[in-house]
Amino acid sequence: MPPFKNYYAVIFTSIRSNGEKGYSHMADQMEELAKVQPGYLGMESARQELGITVSYWESLEAIANWKSNADHLVAQKRGITDWYKWYKLRICKVEREYDFFK
Amino acid sequence: MPPFKNYYAVIFTSIRSNGEKGYSHMADQMEELAKVQPGYLGMESARQELGITVSYWESLEAIANWKSNADHLVAQKRGITDWYKWYKLRICKVEREYDFFK
Repeated sequence: MPPFKNYYAVIFTSIRSNGEKGYSHMADQMEELAKVQPGYLGMESARQELGITVSYWESLEAIANWKSNADHLVAQKRGITDWYKWYKLRICKVEREYDFFK
Repeated sequence: MPPFKNYYAVIFTSIRSNGEKGYSHMADQMEELAKVQPGYLGMESARQELGITVSYWESLEAIANWKSNADHLVAQKRGITDWYKWYKLRICKVEREYDFFK
């Protein structure tokens, strides 16, 4: 097994406010835009009452660049004004990982 | 703001295999059991096609103890034989966090 190379995860947990207000369209756009950022590794999402989106990045620098992307900044503002009642964002260093599949 | 104290996140992403096979009952039991483990800080879950459960812990030692808990080991085996087609588990150090609420 090759040596494990640390990478980073951004855990974004959120509760939506009422109303669609263009949310799904913007969420899709942001996912497409994230995918073409330098250092992007992947994204996983699920939502029931609580939404969890985890995006994976090569470095803290890649996360900082994505955070300050102009279109993403617009989405972040809309998030605060229109889409979320609550969110929490955690920047994490992935230290170990395990897989299972059959 | 008090200085941020690092803690740990276990990101468990999974795809269920077909059939209930006691899954929901065991998932509830494991959540109750996790809550009383030393060093447990919290848990967040959502499932659509993909399931994401993130649990939060004070230390790597707390995670190791929970991993080797006897009842949890039974659930882990059932996970492999009965409940999951695929899963991935990542152990992460939470380095920074931000909140928003209104």
